[in-house]
Amino acid sequence: MNETRRAILAALSDGPVSGPELADDLEVSRAAVWKHIEELRDADFEIESSPNGYELAGVDAYNAPAIEFGLEAPFSIEYHDTLESTNDRARDLAADGAVDVAVVADEQTGGRGRLKREWSSPSGGIWVSIVSRPEITPAQAPLYTLASAVATATVAREAGVDARIKWPNDVVVPVGDDGDYRKLVGILTEMEGETDRVEWLIAGIGVNANLDADGLPEGATSVRNEAGDVDRRTFVQRLLEEFDRYRTDLDAVVPAWCDLALTLGQRVRVERPSGEIVGEAVDVTESGTLEVETDDGRVTVSAGDCEHLRPI
Amino acid sequence: MNETRRAILAALSDGPVSGPELADDLEVSRAAVWKHIEELRDADFEIESSPNGYELAGVDAYNAPAIEFGLEAPFSIEYHDTLESTNDRARDLAADGAVDVAVVADEQTGGRGRLKREWSSPSGGIWVSIVSRPEITPAQAPLYTLASAVATATVAREAGVDARIKWPNDVVVPVGDDGDYRKLVGILTEMEGETDRVEWLIAGIGVNANLDADGLPEGATSVRNEAGDVDRRTFVQRLLEEFDRYRTDLDAVVPAWCDLALTLGQRVRVERPSGEIVGEAVDVTESGTLEVETDDGRVTVSAGDCEHLRPI
Repeated sequence: MNETRRAILAALSDGPVSGPELADDLEVSRAAVWKHIEELRDADFEIESSPNGYELAGVDAYNAPAIEFGLEAPFSIEYHDTLESTNDRARDLAADGAVDVAVVADEQTGGRGRLKREWSSPSGGIWVSIVSRPEITPAQAPLYTLASAVATATVAREAGVDARIKWPNDVVVPVGDDGDYRKLVGILTEMEGETDRVEWLIAGIGVNANLDADGLPEGATSVRNEAGDVDRRTFVQRLLEEFDRYRTDLDAVVPAWCDLALTLGQRVRVERPSGEIVGEAVDVTESGTLEVETDDGRVTVSAGDCEHLRPI
Repeated sequence: MNETRRAILAALSDGPVSGPELADDLEVSRAAVWKHIEELRDADFEIESSPNGYELAGVDAYNAPAIEFGLEAPFSIEYHDTLESTNDRARDLAADGAVDVAVVADEQTGGRGRLKREWSSPSGGIWVSIVSRPEITPAQAPLYTLASAVATATVAREAGVDARIKWPNDVVVPVGDDGDYRKLVGILTEMEGETDRVEWLIAGIGVNANLDADGLPEGATSVRNEAGDVDRRTFVQRLLEEFDRYRTDLDAVVPAWCDLALTLGQRVRVERPSGEIVGEAVDVTESGTLEVETDDGRVTVSAGDCEHLRPI
C-alpha cells in the first residue's frame, strides 16, 4: 500500500477529517485525496462522508490493502481470489528474491500438503504462504514449522477454538480424552539453500476457517464448526503477527509448542523412512525433533508421520 | 548412451571383432553397426579397423559417451563444452524431476562458490554437478558435503596430489606444517525440500585440474602444479564412483573425512552469523558439524567460514 494511502487511512480511522485538511496535512492535491478515497472504497474500505468530512466506518474486506491496514508485522500482502497453490506462487516469488511477503488466496484449486498430498482449499478458508529469508541452517528449519503451528493454534484459540498441536505440524481439536482429534490446520514448510544456510523458507498455512466441516475430508473440522465464523482479515493479521513474534524469538518456540502439545505423554506410532517406532512421546528438542521412549530405549525422531495410539 | 552402442563398445574393448560378427551377436543390421561405429568415432573413441575387425584402441575424449563408458556408478552424464554454471543447469534438471545425473562442463563462464562468491572455472578444470534425490532430512545434508570432499580428496590422492580436507568442504594441499594450505577444489552443495525431507540435492564440485596455478586466484593450486596433468574422463569417473560409494554408506563418511582432515587438532577461527569463535578443532559429529574447544567450553559449529590460525 502506498504511503499516502496509508496516511489517509490512519487519519480517517481517528475520526472525521475533511478533504482539504487531508490535502494540507499530506501535502498532496485535493484531487489526489479524492482519488485515494475512491480507490480505498473500491478495495472495500467503508468510508463515510458527512458534513464534518470523511471517516473510516469499518473494513469489511479480505484483500491486500485491508490485510496490510493495521497489520503489526513487517509483511507485504499479495492477495488472489483464486490460485492453484499459494506455496507455488510463494516459491516463484522467493526464487525472484522476495522477502517477507505473504501470499493469500480466497481459494486454492490445487492446494497440497506434505508429501504432495492433496489439500482441500475451498473459498472461505484461510490459505496463506509466508516467504522468509531467515539466517538459519537447514537443521534449524523445523523450528519454523513449530513456530507456524504455535502461531496458528494461538490465533485459533483467540477465536474460541480449543486448538492443540500434534507433532510436528498439525493443529487439531481434541475429541474426548483418548488422544483422538479432528484436523483444523495444515502446514507445509518448504525451503531451499546450501547445506549450512537457508536461502529462503516458505511457511504454508491452511486453516479450515469459515467452512462447513461436512464438506471437508473425513477427520477434519473447521473454525465455523467449533466456534463460529471469524473475520479472516483479522485472523490473517494475528497469524502474521504471531509468526513474526516467534521467528524473531526462536528460543520461545519450543516452550510455547510444549504448552499446546497434544502429543507429549501420548503413545505414538511414528513411520520413518528407516522403519516404524512405537512408544511414548516424552519431549521435543530445541531443533524440533521428537523424543520417543520405546521398549528399546529413547529414540529421536526427526521425520515421519506420527499417529496417536489409544492408551494400553 | 544407448544399449546397442554400449554393447558394441564392450565387444570392441575385448579385442578385434568383425562387423558381421557384431551384427549377429547384437541382432542388428550391418549398416546399424557401421553407423554406431562412426558415431563413436565422432565422439572421440579411437576405433581401429584391421583385417581382423574393429578394436577399441583408447578413449581420448571428455564428453558424455566417453565418461559413461566404463563408469561404475549409476549416473547419466550431460556434457557441455561451455556452460554458465553446472549447478544452475543441475538445478533446472532437478526441478524437472531428474535423478542421478551429473552435469559436466569443460568451462564455466559464471561459476560460483558458497555465498555466491565467484569461482574461476576455465577450460581444463573439472566442473561437475551431481543431482541426487536422497531419502534424508535437511539436517543430514551436510554429510553429503563431507562425502563430496572425501570423494574428491580420495581421487586427487590417486592422481598423486597430497590432498587434505579443511572443514567443512575445502579440499586443499598443505604447505609446511603450520596449517597453511593452497586450495585445490571448491564444493557447493545446494538443496530443496520440506523441513523434514530433502526433495533434491546437488553436489557441485570444481577441481583445479589441468590448469596453471599462476592463472588462478591467489592461494589456489592445481593438480597440474602438484602432480602433473590427469585424464579428466578417468578423474570424473572415479569421482562419481567414490561419491556413489559414500552416499550409499553414509556411516563411512565421517571416519573417512577424519582420516583426511587437516582441520582437526588445529587452532581455528570460525565466523558464524551469531559471532566469531576461536579454539581448537577437536571433532566432527555424525551430522557433519565441527566441535571447537574454546576458553568458554566446547562449541558445536554448523555454519560459517573456518580459518586456520598459527599455533600459539
